Amino acid sequence: MARLLHHTLDPASRLARLMFAEYGVGVELEAIKPWSRDPLLLEINPAATVPILLVEDHEPPVVGALAVIHAIEERFSPTTVEGLFPATHAGRAEVWRLMEWVLSKLNDEVTRYVIEEKIVKRDQRGGTPDPSVLRVAKANLVEHMLYFNWLFATRHWIAGDVMTLADFALAAHLSCLDYLGDVTWETSVETRDWYARIKSRPAFRSLLSDRVPGMPAHRGYADLDF
Amino acid sequence: MARLLHHTLDPASRLARLMFAEYGVGVELEAIKPWSRDPLLLEINPAATVPILLVEDHEPPVVGALAVIHAIEERFSPTTVEGLFPATHAGRAEVWRLMEWVLSKLNDEVTRYVIEEKIVKRDQRGGTPDPSVLRVAKANLVEHMLYFNWLFATRHWIAGDVMTLADFALAAHLSCLDYLGDVTWETSVETRDWYARIKSRPAFRSLLSDRVPGMPAHRGYADLDF
Repeated sequence: MARLLHHTLDPASRLARLMFAEYGVGVELEAIKPWSRDPLLLEINPAATVPILLVEDHEPPVVGALAVIHAIEERFSPTTVEGLFPATHAGRAEVWRLMEWVLSKLNDEVTRYVIEEKIVKRDQRGGTPDPSVLRVAKANLVEHMLYFNWLFATRHWIAGDVMTLADFALAAHLSCLDYLGDVTWETSVETRDWYARIKSRPAFRSLLSDRVPGMPAHRGYADLDF
Repeated sequence: MARLLHHTLDPASRLARLMFAEYGVGVELEAIKPWSRDPLLLEINPAATVPILLVEDHEPPVVGALAVIHAIEERFSPTTVEGLFPATHAGRAEVWRLMEWVLSKLNDEVTRYVIEEKIVKRDQRGGTPDPSVLRVAKANLVEHMLYFNWLFATRHWIAGDVMTLADFALAAHLSCLDYLGDVTWETSVETRDWYARIKSRPAFRSLLSDRVPGMPAHRGYADLDF
């Protein structure tokens, strides 16, 4: 069975887990703290990031979100069920546009700061979050949610009529932020409706039972009706 | 003919141009300033980034680096010449690992700051670069070059024995930095040897004749022997 080095609240790791679960492929999870800069991790990945996928013992590790996404798609996507990429050029282009929005823009403007302040700082040196950084991240998230609401007002899924990898990418990020209580669902009705739908998929179950030691999930995190 | 909205010193746009040139496919270039936040641009891409590829009049635009890379690969990669992706799983995983290194890590730690300080600020409000930001970017670039030198000491191309998309991605970034005089080649012999090789490819020619109005290229930028 393939093995995934991940962190519970790393959004890119969650995206990989969602893909495996959706494709009905088992994967062994090994939680690590990428910021600990363990020499063994740095040898595999000098960028000290997760996810890292170990497919076969004799093969080199698959390192980073883009490599892991492509590897899962190439090697584990079933031919018998609907995949996570649309069949048209235009559909796939929209998926990649939104993948970049989430993996780069949302991450750079919101998620990475929240994770750094609330998880990494606390774990590394018992530090407390810098409120000014969290304030900026929160303000940025408001803008992103407005855009997502606008998209979901006319689309059933984020890239169009069918669920795609871009839905999983956004859900992976929002689920991390939601765990930490940083999503204001009350003012984001369209996005909440979509999140309720994706959250109730079987693929999402394992994420909802995740717990970070010493940091309980925000109320509503695991509820399908939130 | 397909049309590419780009900026001369935007590394992701340069990557798209290199792919088209390497594949021997003509593309019409339309230079824009993404930071001007032109309403027409924002309508196509609310993230206000380039590249944007217009393949056919009746098709929606292909927006962002990931979407454009995948679209070029799907629609324009020739079957008669060697492509930019290796044939093996492990080879492709290494390409994507390094793509992420360049498009995310190198960009976040170096290129985006240099472009913002030297190009965007000056164009937007006649501003001058913040020396403290450039100092950090320069220090970060030193670390990146050490890693690239280490890779090139044992590899002919960055992902292994054959030239791949990851070489073009790194060359696209370094060529922007080199235009602005920010690469210290003297201390990066291994990377310089690789850059000399990739720079002399026909696909690179159009990049070497690029000029930013009012900002001449640093000496050596267009020389194959630098």
